[in-house]
Amino acid sequence: MDQEKAMVIFQPSGRRGEVPKGITLIEASRLLGVDIEALCGEKKVCGKCIVRIEEGHFEKYNVQSTMSHVSEWKVEEEKFINQDNREKGFRLGCMATVLDDVLVFVPEESRAGKQVVSKAARDIHIDHNPAVRVYNVQVDPPTFEDPTADFERITKALERDYGLQNLTIDIVMLRKLPGILREGKWAVAVSVWNDKEVIRIRPGKAENAYGLAIDVGTTTVAAYFCNLSTMEVVDTVSMMNPQCKYGEDVMARITYHMTTLDGLQRMSDDIIEGINELIEKAVANTHPPKKKRKNDAGEKVLVEVPEEGKTYLRLDKVDIEDITIGFNTAMHHIFLGLTPDYVGMAPFPPVIHHSMDIKARDLGIDINPSSYLFVLPNEAGFVGADNVGVLIAEEPYKGEENQLIIDIGTNGELVLGNRHKLISSSCATGPALEGAQITFGMRAAPGAIERIEIDPETREVDYKVIGRDAWRKFSEPKEMKAKGICGSGILDLLAELYTAGVILKSGVFNKKALESHPRFRINPDNRQPEFVLAWADESSIEKDIVVTQKDIRQIQLAKGALYAGCKLMVKRMGLEKVDRVKIAGAFGTHVDRTKALVMGLFPDCEIDMIEGVGNAAGDGCRAALLNVKKRVEANWCARNVEYIELTVEETFQQDFMEAMQLPHMTDDFPHLRGIVPDEILDQ
Amino acid sequence: MDQEKAMVIFQPSGRRGEVPKGITLIEASRLLGVDIEALCGEKKVCGKCIVRIEEGHFEKYNVQSTMSHVSEWKVEEEKFINQDNREKGFRLGCMATVLDDVLVFVPEESRAGKQVVSKAARDIHIDHNPAVRVYNVQVDPPTFEDPTADFERITKALERDYGLQNLTIDIVMLRKLPGILREGKWAVAVSVWNDKEVIRIRPGKAENAYGLAIDVGTTTVAAYFCNLSTMEVVDTVSMMNPQCKYGEDVMARITYHMTTLDGLQRMSDDIIEGINELIEKAVANTHPPKKKRKNDAGEKVLVEVPEEGKTYLRLDKVDIEDITIGFNTAMHHIFLGLTPDYVGMAPFPPVIHHSMDIKARDLGIDINPSSYLFVLPNEAGFVGADNVGVLIAEEPYKGEENQLIIDIGTNGELVLGNRHKLISSSCATGPALEGAQITFGMRAAPGAIERIEIDPETREVDYKVIGRDAWRKFSEPKEMKAKGICGSGILDLLAELYTAGVILKSGVFNKKALESHPRFRINPDNRQPEFVLAWADESSIEKDIVVTQKDIRQIQLAKGALYAGCKLMVKRMGLEKVDRVKIAGAFGTHVDRTKALVMGLFPDCEIDMIEGVGNAAGDGCRAALLNVKKRVEANWCARNVEYIELTVEETFQQDFMEAMQLPHMTDDFPHLRGIVPDEILDQ
Repeated sequence: MDQEKAMVIFQPSGRRGEVPKGITLIEASRLLGVDIEALCGEKKVCGKCIVRIEEGHFEKYNVQSTMSHVSEWKVEEEKFINQDNREKGFRLGCMATVLDDVLVFVPEESRAGKQVVSKAARDIHIDHNPAVRVYNVQVDPPTFEDPTADFERITKALERDYGLQNLTIDIVMLRKLPGILREGKWAVAVSVWNDKEVIRIRPGKAENAYGLAIDVGTTTVAAYFCNLSTMEVVDTVSMMNPQCKYGEDVMARITYHMTTLDGLQRMSDDIIEGINELIEKAVANTHPPKKKRKNDAGEKVLVEVPEEGKTYLRLDKVDIEDITIGFNTAMHHIFLGLTPDYVGMAPFPPVIHHSMDIKARDLGIDINPSSYLFVLPNEAGFVGADNVGVLIAEEPYKGEENQLIIDIGTNGELVLGNRHKLISSSCATGPALEGAQITFGMRAAPGAIERIEIDPETREVDYKVIGRDAWRKFSEPKEMKAKGICGSGILDLLAELYTAGVILKSGVFNKKALESHPRFRINPDNRQPEFVLAWADESSIEKDIVVTQKDIRQIQLAKGALYAGCKLMVKRMGLEKVDRVKIAGAFGTHVDRTKALVMGLFPDCEIDMIEGVGNAAGDGCRAALLNVKKRVEANWCARNVEYIELTVEETFQQDFMEAMQLPHMTDDFPHLRGIVPDEILDQ
Repeated sequence: MDQEKAMVIFQPSGRRGEVPKGITLIEASRLLGVDIEALCGEKKVCGKCIVRIEEGHFEKYNVQSTMSHVSEWKVEEEKFINQDNREKGFRLGCMATVLDDVLVFVPEESRAGKQVVSKAARDIHIDHNPAVRVYNVQVDPPTFEDPTADFERITKALERDYGLQNLTIDIVMLRKLPGILREGKWAVAVSVWNDKEVIRIRPGKAENAYGLAIDVGTTTVAAYFCNLSTMEVVDTVSMMNPQCKYGEDVMARITYHMTTLDGLQRMSDDIIEGINELIEKAVANTHPPKKKRKNDAGEKVLVEVPEEGKTYLRLDKVDIEDITIGFNTAMHHIFLGLTPDYVGMAPFPPVIHHSMDIKARDLGIDINPSSYLFVLPNEAGFVGADNVGVLIAEEPYKGEENQLIIDIGTNGELVLGNRHKLISSSCATGPALEGAQITFGMRAAPGAIERIEIDPETREVDYKVIGRDAWRKFSEPKEMKAKGICGSGILDLLAELYTAGVILKSGVFNKKALESHPRFRINPDNRQPEFVLAWADESSIEKDIVVTQKDIRQIQLAKGALYAGCKLMVKRMGLEKVDRVKIAGAFGTHVDRTKALVMGLFPDCEIDMIEGVGNAAGDGCRAALLNVKKRVEANWCARNVEYIELTVEETFQQDFMEAMQLPHMTDDFPHLRGIVPDEILDQ
């Protein structure tokens, strides 16, 4: 017997379809391709997946609206939905299950928006030594005197002209060789991988081969599209990690795998499909855009409309002949279809450290089918291939200077040392610094507050949102369309709240100072104090955007974990002070160095020696793409960087607690004097 | 609109099904899994595919039998079907097309029978050095102090205990590692390929790995199933090459590819499916046979019934961890999906010479999925990997003795030389020595005449058929059930006809001597002389089995080509005489050395220095399976054996013409004196 089905329609997207009865609205949204935020991976704790049931709208489908078409209200939902909203039909998407045909409205704040991703290629020095090189050869056709086989005819020429020896060839490519050789009239361009294997042969002459360096973040996937012969970055393409729908952070996704029968397969398929879309996008960008034009017969057809003065490479997917790829260990495992069971469980051993060369076709990656992916090696369960990418881009192991490299993604990954010794660690900052677990936290998407200034005198707030250049001060309220606060705003938020005296060094609201301040109030629902950053009329969600005591606690926990981690590493290396702090990741790009010190994000360092190094993980992937020696270096790093589990250090708990204060007063911050008012520092 | 279909039923097999109207009966037989002989690959020249149309039998399906349900008679069919048989409804399966529902009877002589294959493993010396070795390791579980990844935990132990370094692992295997490691309580048996790649990990302890050495002949596929750890041959399995239905010889199959849109794919799929069946058979043989037994409830169920005193390995397909495989160049190409276009066209260059290591899964071969197939290298277009197998088994390059190695399959492959120089060649013997292109030629299947003796006095014939121990002389006529003459009988045939004076040295019937001999007659249909080997009452096909002047000509052509080839090679090497003749292949196993000399199959040699070396190609595959050094040797052979195209040699035509005589009188055969009557030798 067929499983019973029900029609579900999601608004405002209008996506609709039949789904099996009994599944949750979140599951239905996935089946129908609707992205609903599920930060907690359906652990029913984040309350981000609130939707409104609108059965009444269903009348046009001749469905009775009087009976309930979703499961009954559950007591857990009370935590996130008040009585008023409950009566309006609001429900948690992860709790309510489909009983019959239903129309569901997804409010803007519950939609998983498109993040604004900006990961441009930085200028770093890379030696040109790609794994894939193109060689042009011309051979004689076979005769009775020399009936040598097609392949050996070519390898002999490659040995004669370029000194290449003992080449093999991939069977998929070999099948095409006889035709190509004759099509090219015995002249061919041969792509050789690692001086070992022929992975592509083109008829005639060719100079260029292309590759992708892909950095798979928990949230964002970014790729550098490079010409392997010239090292030029042809394009930078990026997208949301399609796995976000299974949970915002790594642990949520591991949980999804552990609680869903084919969870690993689904997440693996999704990221591979996502990367294939990214590849298509990269390739499509090398062709002129297509526009509708009338043809001679007056019919509208799609035609290429080249931009004036622009030349197009007109590449195909098969022109991508190499890929390097890095991710954190859990994303690495999910991508490769390796169980993340054990990286999610103490003592967090990965399945593999070493890099892997895997045929693109074995993973279902749609490029030149004989090509390989180089998967960067993992350092440890919580310090993955992405951190190896950071290392080979920043090369702290090449100098005497003691560098502290901080990569703040959804977790904090730390490396400290110089050419004599390198140690790494991870700290459970949680995703707060990226906007998650904060009441109005959100990804860096349009409408996100990314910059905040609070007047120390009046404690009035000014802010800027993504997607609008003008600050609040220079705008009409309705122009702001604020929706939440994103990662780069979080740092501003805490620092500004503190320097303006809104909160004390303990993180607690300075209630005395805020008495009768219009932005300060007690929330009637939970009786907790909160501070209003943006009023409802400035928001697109028709709500005041506030920061709560709990939010501040989350940020404190994050920065405390980061600081304590850094401190323990400095101690472990027997150092007094680090020479340089490098902050990688999107967070590092936008970081305000002063505010980072004010917050006590990491141990004291000369302000000039603090630098953002952008998408260093991606740069490392790019270095490995263009220079095979970097691949060897990557494995050296993964093997030789000593991983330290901070949580087992004796003083960790104490250090962590102390580090939650703002700024961290148990240490000396001479560089803050003159930047932060003394009365604040000394309070 | 659907293509119109017609029901076709083949008798006596009873196979039936709907096929598209307009296809030939041969094509229909393939679709329905009926094997009809098609020696010529549907070039309409062999006349082996005669069938009888029996529309009348179709009445039960309510089909009018008065109208013709196959296409009209074609003039080309007259060559093979006389008026009498035409009226009985006989047609060529490759000419008659299906117009409507039709019942077809396939006479026994048109059925592609099961060949009797006997390819047992010979005792040859092989050093033990397999590509796949099993290592047992025990590791500690991960801790916070040592959270090393699963894979590196194992490789460290492999380095510590066995000195293995820089191991990689196949992604498919890696996915299973975490579960296996924990299932085995941190003890595992690791299979390592070529000291490089981990291809299998089993929980707990294990000592043995298994492999197959497969020799794919044009007609027969045979495999040695070996224990890689002990070198023991566990079993020998074989089957017909399922490609036989596309044509008996290599050229017929190349033609099939050239004239059929997906011919290459079909033939490739068939041989791969065939090898998978062989693998299943090999594995099934390691389990007790299953028989129907009553269970406690009185129901009949299949249960294992072990033979007394026999132990069973109980292996699974995944227990096969290595395969070596050799074939002639065309079969090699078809197996790998490489176009055979150019090996079938002068100057016959292959697509590749060198050996290949190909993942079993990339070819669809169903063994341990991370394992490789080692595909032996090709020498030239007509001297393939099978000949390389012969070479590494016989090792003529290791001694001073000048060896002539003859491998008579469907083509003759020749190698001559010693440790200083080796040359190879192929000669177009055609398949006559294997029974094809002979009026009553057939494969070595039951009913084939395999031995013949002709009394020099009476010229009476005695013979023996496969499947019956007693010769004709000691049997009742109806017990013989002769059906045709097979390869091993061909040699007897010509030698006996000649020594008995039935034919002259020119090959022409000795009409004077045969005047009024009851076995000699003029065929009334074609007015050609023929000699009766078996009378209709001794045959299962109700026909006299005869040898015609044309048949004798075919055998003469084959032996002439072989002899001329050998002679030219001896000349090219500057030799007077070879020291040893080795005859490989099924033909070599059954060859009567004296008769081979009488026929002038190859240049003179001491009779004691002529030996059959059996399935040397298969032995070479087995050597490569059990000793990786043999793989290197194979590539050395393929590169260093000089291929000579005989047909371009100046004297080839002249030598060939002369060599067709019986025996070859332009040379001296001192060893025949005393064996063959002087009056015959000197006639």
